Amino acid sequence: METEYFYLLSFLTAAVAFAFAGYLYLWVKRQRTVNEKIIEVSELIKQGANTFMSREYKILAKFGFVIAIIIMLLLPKPIWSGGEWQKNIMMGLAYIAGTILSAIAGKIGILVATLSNSRAAEGAQEGIKPAFLIGFRGGAVMGLLVVGCSLLGVAAVLWVAGDASILLGFSFGASSLALFAKAGGGIFTKTADISADLTGKVELGIPEDDPRNPAVIADNVGDNVGDVAGMGADLFDSNVAAMASALVIAGTNVANISMVFCYAILGLIASIIGIATARIGKNGNPTRALNSSTYVTTAAFLVLSAGATALFEGFSWKIWGASAVGLLVGVIIGITTDYFTDDSKPIVRKAAHASNSGPAFTILTGMAYGFISAMPAMVGIAISALVAFKLGGIFGISMAAVGMLSIVGMIISNDAYGPIVDNARGLAEMGGLGEETIRIADELDSAGNTVKAVTKGFSISAAGLTVISLLGAFMAEANSALLAAGKELITGFDIMDPTVFFGILVGASIPAVFSAMLILGVDKNAQRMVAEIHHQFDTIVGLKEGKAGVKPDYDKCIDIATTGSLKELIPAGMMSIVSTIAVGFIGGPLAIGGFLLGNIVSGLLIALFMSNAGGLWDNAKKYVEAGNEGGKGSKAHKAAVIGDTVGDPFKDTAGPSINTQITVVSLVASLLSSLFVAFSIFG
Amino acid sequence: METEYFYLLSFLTAAVAFAFAGYLYLWVKRQRTVNEKIIEVSELIKQGANTFMSREYKILAKFGFVIAIIIMLLLPKPIWSGGEWQKNIMMGLAYIAGTILSAIAGKIGILVATLSNSRAAEGAQEGIKPAFLIGFRGGAVMGLLVVGCSLLGVAAVLWVAGDASILLGFSFGASSLALFAKAGGGIFTKTADISADLTGKVELGIPEDDPRNPAVIADNVGDNVGDVAGMGADLFDSNVAAMASALVIAGTNVANISMVFCYAILGLIASIIGIATARIGKNGNPTRALNSSTYVTTAAFLVLSAGATALFEGFSWKIWGASAVGLLVGVIIGITTDYFTDDSKPIVRKAAHASNSGPAFTILTGMAYGFISAMPAMVGIAISALVAFKLGGIFGISMAAVGMLSIVGMIISNDAYGPIVDNARGLAEMGGLGEETIRIADELDSAGNTVKAVTKGFSISAAGLTVISLLGAFMAEANSALLAAGKELITGFDIMDPTVFFGILVGASIPAVFSAMLILGVDKNAQRMVAEIHHQFDTIVGLKEGKAGVKPDYDKCIDIATTGSLKELIPAGMMSIVSTIAVGFIGGPLAIGGFLLGNIVSGLLIALFMSNAGGLWDNAKKYVEAGNEGGKGSKAHKAAVIGDTVGDPFKDTAGPSINTQITVVSLVASLLSSLFVAFSIFG
Repeated sequence: METEYFYLLSFLTAAVAFAFAGYLYLWVKRQRTVNEKIIEVSELIKQGANTFMSREYKILAKFGFVIAIIIMLLLPKPIWSGGEWQKNIMMGLAYIAGTILSAIAGKIGILVATLSNSRAAEGAQEGIKPAFLIGFRGGAVMGLLVVGCSLLGVAAVLWVAGDASILLGFSFGASSLALFAKAGGGIFTKTADISADLTGKVELGIPEDDPRNPAVIADNVGDNVGDVAGMGADLFDSNVAAMASALVIAGTNVANISMVFCYAILGLIASIIGIATARIGKNGNPTRALNSSTYVTTAAFLVLSAGATALFEGFSWKIWGASAVGLLVGVIIGITTDYFTDDSKPIVRKAAHASNSGPAFTILTGMAYGFISAMPAMVGIAISALVAFKLGGIFGISMAAVGMLSIVGMIISNDAYGPIVDNARGLAEMGGLGEETIRIADELDSAGNTVKAVTKGFSISAAGLTVISLLGAFMAEANSALLAAGKELITGFDIMDPTVFFGILVGASIPAVFSAMLILGVDKNAQRMVAEIHHQFDTIVGLKEGKAGVKPDYDKCIDIATTGSLKELIPAGMMSIVSTIAVGFIGGPLAIGGFLLGNIVSGLLIALFMSNAGGLWDNAKKYVEAGNEGGKGSKAHKAAVIGDTVGDPFKDTAGPSINTQITVVSLVASLLSSLFVAFSIFG
Repeated sequence: METEYFYLLSFLTAAVAFAFAGYLYLWVKRQRTVNEKIIEVSELIKQGANTFMSREYKILAKFGFVIAIIIMLLLPKPIWSGGEWQKNIMMGLAYIAGTILSAIAGKIGILVATLSNSRAAEGAQEGIKPAFLIGFRGGAVMGLLVVGCSLLGVAAVLWVAGDASILLGFSFGASSLALFAKAGGGIFTKTADISADLTGKVELGIPEDDPRNPAVIADNVGDNVGDVAGMGADLFDSNVAAMASALVIAGTNVANISMVFCYAILGLIASIIGIATARIGKNGNPTRALNSSTYVTTAAFLVLSAGATALFEGFSWKIWGASAVGLLVGVIIGITTDYFTDDSKPIVRKAAHASNSGPAFTILTGMAYGFISAMPAMVGIAISALVAFKLGGIFGISMAAVGMLSIVGMIISNDAYGPIVDNARGLAEMGGLGEETIRIADELDSAGNTVKAVTKGFSISAAGLTVISLLGAFMAEANSALLAAGKELITGFDIMDPTVFFGILVGASIPAVFSAMLILGVDKNAQRMVAEIHHQFDTIVGLKEGKAGVKPDYDKCIDIATTGSLKELIPAGMMSIVSTIAVGFIGGPLAIGGFLLGNIVSGLLIALFMSNAGGLWDNAKKYVEAGNEGGKGSKAHKAAVIGDTVGDPFKDTAGPSINTQITVVSLVASLLSSLFVAFSIFG
């Protein structure tokens, strides 16, 4: 089996995915949009999203340029140390390619999402079926683009460079963009969401998405930049990192390299099958429709990959088993996440019930179950890593990550569906489409929330497995540097070695500090925006009363969210990268091995805790609002709203950003391994 | 240097400590107590505490009996496997001795504390000086007893058994009692505290410690059983575990064994010096007085241990350095904890200020800084472990733990001072001693709170270092079992080994689940007690209005707290022990090594986070109540009260119980190592 053959197939499959995405884009574009108010607001959302994205990308372009120069000077080896300067150039270019592909996928995803929201709102007038399809297909464009771009990028870089370690540069490009896109978008969206809720729902008692609220457009923009662009960049990053680490570990083993590409190709094909066959009845249940597409994709991947394993010489059934275990554990983790965050299950109802005793009990109950919810996922990842290793060594673990991420196209589609229908609900409210349409939009939105919690559990776990295989990639890189330097090779990272242990403890504190910095960023930024909203209500005559023709200054709120989020994300991102470099130069490769482990362990724990507690509070509030425990306006409702506000930055800012933080840190470690070998103080 | 010489010195020093404790006890007892109301209430508190303690000890006696039988049958080797059954008997007896000594220290500590509280209240009528001395000396009795008992116990067990591994049984006795004392006492105290606050301060607007509140006695009882008996058992456990692991690692090296005892003896002498020289001026600052005693003790230990190292042959300066590093890092961690929890520092003020935007911001700010506060302590522990290892290998790390715990007598004295003066404040209120006396009692109480936060940071860190050395002890034990079984020895626990990795991830989830179970226990129990209080206010005529002669049924509340806490603590404790055994029988010693590491890492992180966030919220509330950010009754105050309620089970139940949980798990692992070697499935 020639690997070139798989490069070609990768390009072809990516092209098919792009073509299908183009078809879906045109299909969405053809849908009806007539309500002028909706068109106007949708245009405002689009402009707001574009403003944020272009300001973010401008900052990131400068940042990326500096990093690319540094990479070209230093990596894989300092350019003055003699030898292959061409590799340095390639590494730098691969880094730039990673950032650009991620940015393009994010940009187009936003474009389609902001196109779909107004059409889904109008579709909801005709029923759940057309609105669901518009939302789903709009999201699928993003899903197909992300997976297509990652397959294309990885294949192209490896083909051109002929050296898997260059892929780490590409992957680092993807993840450094993802770190900022996820964290920045997360701060933006929750700044706007919290401020809009606090001033609108809580203080004035006006409905969600009321056009009088100056933060309402910013809130809708936030859904797009946080959940569409941010989550897309996050999963692009995980997917690329999983493939890159599998290929680094595969080394020169042609069968293994072929397997990585083959499985990635089949995953994309399975996602296309899942997306193309997504159906909903006239009065169907949207949650069920989304879930069944996921199951179709999972089954399709398992069958297709088994077929390929039988067909191609050199493909190992054990490795197939490892990737199947990864995928199945991913699905099981999704289901357990659902148990902790779905309001038809007991946990959310307990939190809602506890709210009767006041907000402190809402918080305590949610936090306690959030901590408990981390256990099944961590045990699941532990078991899948153990089984995958027994089946195929460290390559088996990396293939478990590839297997888990094989259905990522479908996962992103489901996830991007959420903000589209969330926006559609807002547009239906602002466009005055009537109660029945809003009810349908609400139902679609609620399905989006449920699926989003599952997606988050899935993507955190996928990042966990990926980072474990990146640990393997790091050891491979460090050893080739040690070999070149004529030093003793690393055979492992022993906990009892105090240098490793030092790294573990320091590494474990990083995700805690990182997530805290993001939460404080949202906190500070929301206080700025709340002040602005109060200012507008006080100074714009007739705004509070809803006098015809009086409009708030939406742009000012978008501007605050944009400026603040970009200002707050830089220190958090830099803290993670700088501390990795500091530990590497102090303790060398052994300390870094421990550091990465500490990062993974506490990162998984905190990310799962925050995402699940946040989802649980959100749905407890919705459960109360649906008329339980006293319903809207009751004491329990007030407490549940406070729980939801605490949960907002947990689940949409800090929790899901930790994924990208641990991936970035792992890649920085791998990339700089030769420098750590050469220059560490105690290493 | 004969080790027998040090056994003798240990017994002598313990005797001196007991004598000094007896002197302080008599001094406290001689102090004036005349106010009949105070005598009556103080008697109620004493009875309540005794009721809880005797019911708790009865349950623990049954539990301990079963464990002792199991130990005699199975440990160190199954009794049917031939060989030394005498060792099994000794192990079982050592276990029982550990539980009994811990129980005696707790019992006497409570006796003195409930004696001191009324006297401190009356002393406060004459000024800050007499009240401070009564509170401090009452606490010192507990401090001296705990350290005396641990020194006596360890020396006696080793002298009789002549085998350091039997010490693990003694240590396990101490820590299994501590697990239940800390967790049970923690659930009791916070059940009562939260319920009293919610119904009294929040709903009825009556002051704290108002005698009309049915939960008020239970609240005061809780301070004693949680903070005096619980914290005492916790630090008894850490101190014994630190000495035990140092002695296991020392093996048959006479100089090292002598050093462990010598340093422990000198630590006790240093604490006696610190306690005896504690002074406060007529209008002195009690916080400064408590801190300066700690510094005196620290300096005394460093000087005495340096002298001993110079004097005795075979004592190593490097090991002295390791213990000095441990002690200094412990003090530094205490100071950084103070930075995050003291209301004269910026962090607490930020949380108080954020409360103006509502309770969600109080919670988010406190949680974020709680996470950040974990970093300096974790980095501090990492550095001390690294330096201690470079100085003296794994024995160096264990001596760093011994060094850090050398001043534990002083630490416990400071800590037990807190609940005594807290009770005194309540008694002054209930006894109607007037505003000036209450103000003085408040000032003493506030010093107790500040010092308590520091103590907690210290004890968590000490447990961290101890558990690291227990990891070393576990490896030593596992290897002697492997050697006996003719299997390959363990040279370390490699992160890249999937069995170790499996253990790490599972282990990391245990402290999260354990703390969540305790929080839910408080939550459930408080809801029961709130219902009872409402019932009493509704059914007892004239209670709400404070009609003369009408009394609430205090006993009912004490009963709810007692029954509930004993019911809720068993599952949490069993979960930790059973999961350790399960991992050991599944994955064998390698998985257990990883499991212990995961436990340490996530245990430290969560314990520090919870303790510091809780302390921060408590003091933010106090800061607002002192008239800042709108003062009592303001919006910020309401929010700060919610933060404090969330923080209560964090800082006084879950956070500080994690110490004992990780110690118990480590000891179970060491004790069962030979069984894991013989019977594991995949190990």
